[in-house]
Amino acid sequence: MTVRRADLTPARLPRGFADRGAAELKTLREMTERIRETYELWGFEGLETPVFEYTDALGKFLPDQDRPNAGVFSLQDDDEQWMSLRYDLTAPLARFVAENFQRLPKPYRSYRFGPVFRNEKPGPGRFRQFLQFDADIVGAASVAADAEMCMMMADALEAVGVKRGDYVIKVNNRKILDGVMEAIGLGGEENAGRRLTVLRAIDKLDRLGPEGVRALLGRGRKDESGDFTKGAGLDDEAALRVLSILKAKTADNLETARRLFEEFSSTESGQDGARELSAIATLIEQAGYEGRVSIDPSVVRGLEYYTGPVYEAELTFTIEDDDGRPIQFGSVGGGGRYDGLVGRFMAEDTPATGFSIGVSRLLAALTALKGETAPAADGPVVVLALDREHIGRSMAQAAKLREAGIAAEVYLGSSGMKAQMKYADRRRSPCVVIQGSDEREAEIPQVTLKDLVEGAKAAAAIKERSEWTESRPAQVTVPEERLVEEVRAILARHG
Amino acid sequence: MTVRRADLTPARLPRGFADRGAAELKTLREMTERIRETYELWGFEGLETPVFEYTDALGKFLPDQDRPNAGVFSLQDDDEQWMSLRYDLTAPLARFVAENFQRLPKPYRSYRFGPVFRNEKPGPGRFRQFLQFDADIVGAASVAADAEMCMMMADALEAVGVKRGDYVIKVNNRKILDGVMEAIGLGGEENAGRRLTVLRAIDKLDRLGPEGVRALLGRGRKDESGDFTKGAGLDDEAALRVLSILKAKTADNLETARRLFEEFSSTESGQDGARELSAIATLIEQAGYEGRVSIDPSVVRGLEYYTGPVYEAELTFTIEDDDGRPIQFGSVGGGGRYDGLVGRFMAEDTPATGFSIGVSRLLAALTALKGETAPAADGPVVVLALDREHIGRSMAQAAKLREAGIAAEVYLGSSGMKAQMKYADRRRSPCVVIQGSDEREAEIPQVTLKDLVEGAKAAAAIKERSEWTESRPAQVTVPEERLVEEVRAILARHG
Repeated sequence: MTVRRADLTPARLPRGFADRGAAELKTLREMTERIRETYELWGFEGLETPVFEYTDALGKFLPDQDRPNAGVFSLQDDDEQWMSLRYDLTAPLARFVAENFQRLPKPYRSYRFGPVFRNEKPGPGRFRQFLQFDADIVGAASVAADAEMCMMMADALEAVGVKRGDYVIKVNNRKILDGVMEAIGLGGEENAGRRLTVLRAIDKLDRLGPEGVRALLGRGRKDESGDFTKGAGLDDEAALRVLSILKAKTADNLETARRLFEEFSSTESGQDGARELSAIATLIEQAGYEGRVSIDPSVVRGLEYYTGPVYEAELTFTIEDDDGRPIQFGSVGGGGRYDGLVGRFMAEDTPATGFSIGVSRLLAALTALKGETAPAADGPVVVLALDREHIGRSMAQAAKLREAGIAAEVYLGSSGMKAQMKYADRRRSPCVVIQGSDEREAEIPQVTLKDLVEGAKAAAAIKERSEWTESRPAQVTVPEERLVEEVRAILARHG
Repeated sequence: MTVRRADLTPARLPRGFADRGAAELKTLREMTERIRETYELWGFEGLETPVFEYTDALGKFLPDQDRPNAGVFSLQDDDEQWMSLRYDLTAPLARFVAENFQRLPKPYRSYRFGPVFRNEKPGPGRFRQFLQFDADIVGAASVAADAEMCMMMADALEAVGVKRGDYVIKVNNRKILDGVMEAIGLGGEENAGRRLTVLRAIDKLDRLGPEGVRALLGRGRKDESGDFTKGAGLDDEAALRVLSILKAKTADNLETARRLFEEFSSTESGQDGARELSAIATLIEQAGYEGRVSIDPSVVRGLEYYTGPVYEAELTFTIEDDDGRPIQFGSVGGGGRYDGLVGRFMAEDTPATGFSIGVSRLLAALTALKGETAPAADGPVVVLALDREHIGRSMAQAAKLREAGIAAEVYLGSSGMKAQMKYADRRRSPCVVIQGSDEREAEIPQVTLKDLVEGAKAAAAIKERSEWTESRPAQVTVPEERLVEEVRAILARHG
């Protein structure tokens, strides 16, 4: 089929989507395996739901509360029903639990991994398809479940290679925030919008500091670019009351919980919240997770549906921002208790708690931690094909290597020796197998093996081309029947 | 949050989509890992593309040629461009290769795994989201690449547990079919529709036999339900000529290729096709894959875009159909050479060959092969929580087990002993840990371990309830500090 240039279709990805190459996939696979093993060690079992749900099943729990039903990819099915691509892995879990309630063990501990979708303006590092790895317990009302989730998040981070001290799981309780809201007159359905503005203001403490949060609690704030963000409109007293939550934090979890109780026990909600945090602090201490899980009243988590403890995994080591300034890496996931979410589908009480790990962000963090490493020679052995007629013999050689568990391929293009060597380099091949006619036709057939790792080192060291040609570094000719052993020896040399 | 029953949202999946539970996910993961290892052993590297592509990038290569642009989930982006969910993993590969052509090693060997989508009427076993696992070589014009693909498919099937003799990779060449079409006057763009009807007729040989195919090549065929399928309208001579292709098959690959050459060398296309099959047969013999890969002129593969060798993986063992009659399991994947697909995006020549494994079908086949097996006690150890006040101690016990690499969880619900034991059974727990107040307060604190596998056996054997109560089968009380060793001993008993 010949296509004229004018007829060509442009080859490009839709905006906000990305391809993933071999190296990234490998790191990703290793990371997600460690997370999965951790979750299974804690008694969680796998569940996978499809990417589509009926739009009504996603309900009002959409990522952007200000624009209901925006932010989601939706289409109409041929029976006129609206379907949407899931925007997180929690709404599908709620649907699944309600649909299969009778046959599930309760509490139901599950983990889920997969892509979620946001129909939003893409930006640097902000994609419209990205991966989440969630774990949830449905049917456990006790805060022991929330404490477990925090501890398991800590374990998961260590399992993927984040060192103790390089992260903290912060835990707070929405009930304390709710109590304060109630106390300053922001209770009730009619104030839901203003409550959300308050929560978002607190959420920005890390970035804007107390002064910035204060401004957003009051009239509003003009940022460096001159853009004005409207505030929650609280008066000074109310704003100070909200800010006082943030001051309760100490290095001792039980002490923090005690202070919160002292300060915020004027409402039932505040009392409950502080008591629950105190129980969590005790469990964390008993299990030996102090220092890894920390009670921190500044944690908010943006979603309206949380009803109790909320928690967040933060990486505390610094990386450089775009302007070269050191900044904390920040959040890689979080969650909380959402006792109302499953209840949308069924009359029964279904308390639930769980969290989500932002897989791409964690992957970026691990890459930043590791730093730049030289690409390993982790590609396949390449058997060169110098003579089309004898490619069957090359294929048999590759088959022998594979039988021995060594990744190997025959060069299948139509280029000559030089291009084939270049190909092997691009494949990060540790070694190539060469058999010219002399070697093939010798009384005892031979193959030449070229160690590409040694070869590259030698080439860097040897400056004189004549010397190179004479010494033929990192190259050895051996009987063909010893192919597997000799290749193995080269691979062993490079670990 | 209390919701009145009338306000409840129905919990249901959109039609044609399915959830996947823990047991299925485990089998799936093990299967896909084996496939991935096989592909990597052959020098293929991973690639992942997003689920969306611009609709024009999918082009005319849609699953249903009769209804262009039907069969695909599409939606309009906010910049008015149409995007579609991928319906296979080949069109995205073509887009990726064209977009990244300069920086890719050539030939480019990649594998891809993930969900694809068809906007079709769902039916029994026919889903609108399903998994494919593809491997392709782009940039290799030689049929050695096609031979490799066939052999790698054979290796992949054996790697996942299909025994030699239980499968065959059938290979044919579109050029032979094209030559015959040309010879009977069905060449040219204007006959594309009729050619497709002929291909589809041949494709039904397994199901309808030669008589059925003959009818579909001619005027048409009425099936058992009385439905009439319109035929290709070939006259007797042309129909016989097409059918003669199917008769060339012998048990010997080289002999089959020779016969095809003899019979169909009247067109250049037919000559090329037979010569290529002969080359493939030789390579297969040299690599020792005879009997596993078989030249079979009945293989068609439905897609219009194939330009050379086509191949199909068939499982040859029998299962029972819905009416209890034994039938061959049939195809679990296939592919072929598609030299025109990448060329849609770029002027350069980009020959390509590759195949797709239908992951769900292969999974169903493996499940059928294994037969019904008793569910293993592969769940976590459950630490019962008999006393809310002491749950911290239970959590510490579970933590000790996890530190020793044993999956363990604390029961987090609010039910009593009996329900907790039932929960452990449903989780397929091998063993539960119990600590009542007597055991906790003993001078040397104790725990009781209950072996649920032994317990179930004993319960089946013991009929008298009194005997049961006295003998307390499969239960042991040990010092708490020996928890890990004693649990390990129980797990070792059950492998």
